[in-house]
Amino acid sequence: MSLASPAECGGAGLSDVDCRLLGRAVELGRLGWGRVHPNPMVGAVVAREGRVVAEAHHEVFGGPHAEVLALHGVGDARGATVYSSLEPCSHRGKTPPCTEALLKAGVARVVYWAGEPGDAAGGGGAWLARRGLQADGPFGERADWAAENPFFFHAPELRRPYVALKLAVSLDGRIAPREGRRFWLTGPEARAEVHRVRAGFDAVLVGSRTWEADDPQLTVRGEIEPRVAPVPVLLDRSGRADPGLRALSGEGGPRGIVFTCPGEARGLARRLGDLADVAAVPAAQGGLDLVAILQSLNECGIATVLCEGGGTLGSALLALDLVDRLYLFLAPVLIGASGVPAFPRGPGGDPESLVRVFRGWRSRLAPVRFGNDTLVVLDRGA
Amino acid sequence: MSLASPAECGGAGLSDVDCRLLGRAVELGRLGWGRVHPNPMVGAVVAREGRVVAEAHHEVFGGPHAEVLALHGVGDARGATVYSSLEPCSHRGKTPPCTEALLKAGVARVVYWAGEPGDAAGGGGAWLARRGLQADGPFGERADWAAENPFFFHAPELRRPYVALKLAVSLDGRIAPREGRRFWLTGPEARAEVHRVRAGFDAVLVGSRTWEADDPQLTVRGEIEPRVAPVPVLLDRSGRADPGLRALSGEGGPRGIVFTCPGEARGLARRLGDLADVAAVPAAQGGLDLVAILQSLNECGIATVLCEGGGTLGSALLALDLVDRLYLFLAPVLIGASGVPAFPRGPGGDPESLVRVFRGWRSRLAPVRFGNDTLVVLDRGA
Repeated sequence: MSLASPAECGGAGLSDVDCRLLGRAVELGRLGWGRVHPNPMVGAVVAREGRVVAEAHHEVFGGPHAEVLALHGVGDARGATVYSSLEPCSHRGKTPPCTEALLKAGVARVVYWAGEPGDAAGGGGAWLARRGLQADGPFGERADWAAENPFFFHAPELRRPYVALKLAVSLDGRIAPREGRRFWLTGPEARAEVHRVRAGFDAVLVGSRTWEADDPQLTVRGEIEPRVAPVPVLLDRSGRADPGLRALSGEGGPRGIVFTCPGEARGLARRLGDLADVAAVPAAQGGLDLVAILQSLNECGIATVLCEGGGTLGSALLALDLVDRLYLFLAPVLIGASGVPAFPRGPGGDPESLVRVFRGWRSRLAPVRFGNDTLVVLDRGA
Repeated sequence: MSLASPAECGGAGLSDVDCRLLGRAVELGRLGWGRVHPNPMVGAVVAREGRVVAEAHHEVFGGPHAEVLALHGVGDARGATVYSSLEPCSHRGKTPPCTEALLKAGVARVVYWAGEPGDAAGGGGAWLARRGLQADGPFGERADWAAENPFFFHAPELRRPYVALKLAVSLDGRIAPREGRRFWLTGPEARAEVHRVRAGFDAVLVGSRTWEADDPQLTVRGEIEPRVAPVPVLLDRSGRADPGLRALSGEGGPRGIVFTCPGEARGLARRLGDLADVAAVPAAQGGLDLVAILQSLNECGIATVLCEGGGTLGSALLALDLVDRLYLFLAPVLIGASGVPAFPRGPGGDPESLVRVFRGWRSRLAPVRFGNDTLVVLDRGA
């Protein structure tokens, strides 16, 4: 995101320079992916007369906020403008409030993009304005803020984790030439991006066909070292999971969770021993009860889940309206009509159930090219 | 394209500023789309100490070149650096050579991105260097230059027009719920972009199912007024085209061309009268001989063709390796397995023929979001 124009940043009254620097703050915020959750990703820029004098982002959960770090980067911030991707906090959490730091530093103006959620009474912006600073914000729409900080703006009333579905598809909407065989559709650049994305989630979920075919590690092996490694979660209705599976036997990784149906739980738990927690949920529509699984994960403190397929599980989640975001990697490849469809019928077999799925979904983030592949991010409507 | 880093612009020895300004020149060049063909699109920037003092692009075929226009924008260009997206010309065409203008203006340095094709002996860059200017270029790869100026770098030895295929597809690789019904898959922003793309082509080609189902106008109704409006070209093996078709009966537009098989040509010509030229080509594999059609268009002086579907014609062109570029608009929609596939089997019915199609193709241009839809541009390998 560059928020290159006042229209894009939603800021009537903002100059092009304001929008460019707000966009830069948003961009900096993204550097916190995988490190700050459950805090929001926030970036901040200190500028004088439109020139950047310091930049920072919230680097790690529990560490100093972006605004405070950016102020540390300047000897004297008196009279400067601070741009932040999120309204400065006015509450004392793990660190003192940013609003006090901004006031104490003698900043003349604060411009922020997203509003602090749930702060209808007026958050840090209003607090600063009451003390004579020029506080401009929030700008744009909540849905755009949520696209940048999906976890932070995830609706708690859903009582389930934020769920993203990652699929790599061919131009003809297939994920593999045939069932049960490991197949790389995308190139190395896209696969590196998958590791980056994975680093931001509490858990990585795969259906039985995927772990049976691919035996994936589900670990993060990329540039970002996640603050907390994602928990591997396998669905296994038939209780066939094996202690040799790479997702369960990886050294030093977090203990996995395997969901199965009540009749299989005891045998499976005995077989997997210390390698994984086995949880029983009711069977449903040819698989397991996905709502129960997400509730169970929520109760375990797993707030965000990346489902990495396959098509059957992804489509079942979509058809039940349990997906908040789709990471779609489009590979410039044709597989042909005999290939495995990325979006097979939903559970219950109604061919129309999936057709309705994406109504109300929006593409809010810019698509990105990774090598020859294109990442399209689609977000569920509010 | 921003060519934001030296790596991206392929310029060892270039600074970040050089690359940014080269990227700006490329960006400016794009403003000539629909106006300069068969000349290349070229943009130029005059800078002093990394600051832009003038910008220009080649605006219309036969008009002054970008470098000359940019120099006109500066009172005194002595000692300045000129960035151009293409090697300055050293030959006298419709206008005097740019190299002489640059020399006369007293420019100290010229930086250019793409090399003039077919100028192995040294073009404008070498000419300038011999006269004491610092001439830096070309940078990057021919394939990247061709992605920016596809028509200009189109291989003449192919003896057929440059062919681009535009398809709007759903996430499950379908173009419509059923055959024979007009259907809007993409939103208004994507459709506006189609008009912009169309403005750059000499002809717009559609297969019989598309004109029968959609009765498209095939005119350019967007922001760009093309210098020469594209010729509508219809395929009509069965000789069913009607004088009432909007593509043929549009007022003030160029006369269309309808291809049919020899047995239908006379009757069709009589029925269409002055509305279109009717040309006979042999029938082939369930349709018409596409190689003969492209040869025939080439002989009529049509150097660039945009095929706007449908899936059957597009797939036939792809399977015969007659497509140079795919403009794929991806809509966040599912249509379901009963929908019309974007890539049905190739001619001859071999399900594998299409699977091989995109080997060697590359995604060189950045994907762009238009409203909720994403445009992915794929280019055929050399």
